[in-house]
Amino acid sequence: MKIQVVKNILDANDRIADENRSLFDQKELFVINLMSSPGAGKTSLVERTIMALKDRIRIGVIEGDIQDTCDADRVAALGIPVVQINTGGGCHLDANMVREGFAGLDLDALDLLIVENVGNQVCPAEFRIGEDVKVMILSTPEGTDKPSKYPLIFQKSAVMLLNKIDLLPYLDFDRARVYKNVLALNRGMDIFEISCRTGQGLDAWFAWLAKRVERRG
Amino acid sequence: MKIQVVKNILDANDRIADENRSLFDQKELFVINLMSSPGAGKTSLVERTIMALKDRIRIGVIEGDIQDTCDADRVAALGIPVVQINTGGGCHLDANMVREGFAGLDLDALDLLIVENVGNQVCPAEFRIGEDVKVMILSTPEGTDKPSKYPLIFQKSAVMLLNKIDLLPYLDFDRARVYKNVLALNRGMDIFEISCRTGQGLDAWFAWLAKRVERRG
Repeated sequence: MKIQVVKNILDANDRIADENRSLFDQKELFVINLMSSPGAGKTSLVERTIMALKDRIRIGVIEGDIQDTCDADRVAALGIPVVQINTGGGCHLDANMVREGFAGLDLDALDLLIVENVGNQVCPAEFRIGEDVKVMILSTPEGTDKPSKYPLIFQKSAVMLLNKIDLLPYLDFDRARVYKNVLALNRGMDIFEISCRTGQGLDAWFAWLAKRVERRG
Repeated sequence: MKIQVVKNILDANDRIADENRSLFDQKELFVINLMSSPGAGKTSLVERTIMALKDRIRIGVIEGDIQDTCDADRVAALGIPVVQINTGGGCHLDANMVREGFAGLDLDALDLLIVENVGNQVCPAEFRIGEDVKVMILSTPEGTDKPSKYPLIFQKSAVMLLNKIDLLPYLDFDRARVYKNVLALNRGMDIFEISCRTGQGLDAWFAWLAKRVERRG
């Protein structure tokens, strides 16, 4: 009975995600669903990406949070159109919330839509929102065991950004083991090592993203 | 309609949590519900706590994970009775899962039961399991904004352990602002600054915990 309810919810979500997807195709919009644990660096990555690419690419942002607007405020300060979705306790964004969110944006005036999901390594990976790609951040202080403990997000993401590499000298983080386990879950994943604090490694991510957006337009 | 379903789930959970609570009272067992984001240091804290207190206090552990048994293996290696609960995708433990878990432990032979929840800063805080106290870990790399973004876990926890303080020199973490925001949500919260890596600050936590367990017995 419980499984049935969950299945119905996911089916309904998939229908709306497909409608979102059709609209994004029609608008030639590249859409990223950005996911990570709380505090891994999603908003810092969004800020860095906007600052690097906003003169080449027209970017809009949907910020998903349980409550508050502090992430949206950070994005708005960069002069970028942004919509805040507050889930009111909910631990992920679904396709319908995203649809309500982008109704507040002029999609014809955008090339790239970044949807920053709620900070959670579990549920966001289950809900398609009509995105082109899921992008995940793993931050080095979270430790080596995350791919074995939260496999779905690693399986579903096209890109993993390993953030906070500036902290590696102060941590017991086994990069070789993480990469081995991540690639066992998802052989085709693109991995970039970055630090949103120092800027290290971000150029490769910007190049990857710009190429994808331009290919789509 | 959706709200109704959620309310029924929480009501059913509360009934089982009350039954768990009665049993724990009868067994004079002190029960901790340990919560945090993924990688904040829950299992490291459990290991440190066992090593410090196992000669004084009889400890049992329930490990909640989406899949795998690596945390339970770490605890079992210390010679402590441990039960693994795999939620199979679920992002939190509920009272019924915990009831099924402790059926595998001899509660008469324990003074303290530590329930390590799934790594998630959102949903675990909504589900009572019959615990005496909720204890949360915030780790310094997660950043300063967590109390505003995930208020419920801060409101519901009796104790906050600020872990990874050895990393403070390498982070932009504003302790004063965090404490101000945490105490605005929960004025009575006990806060301990710790590093599970270096051992710094843990003695105060062990003393707090031992006192609570002994008071209960």
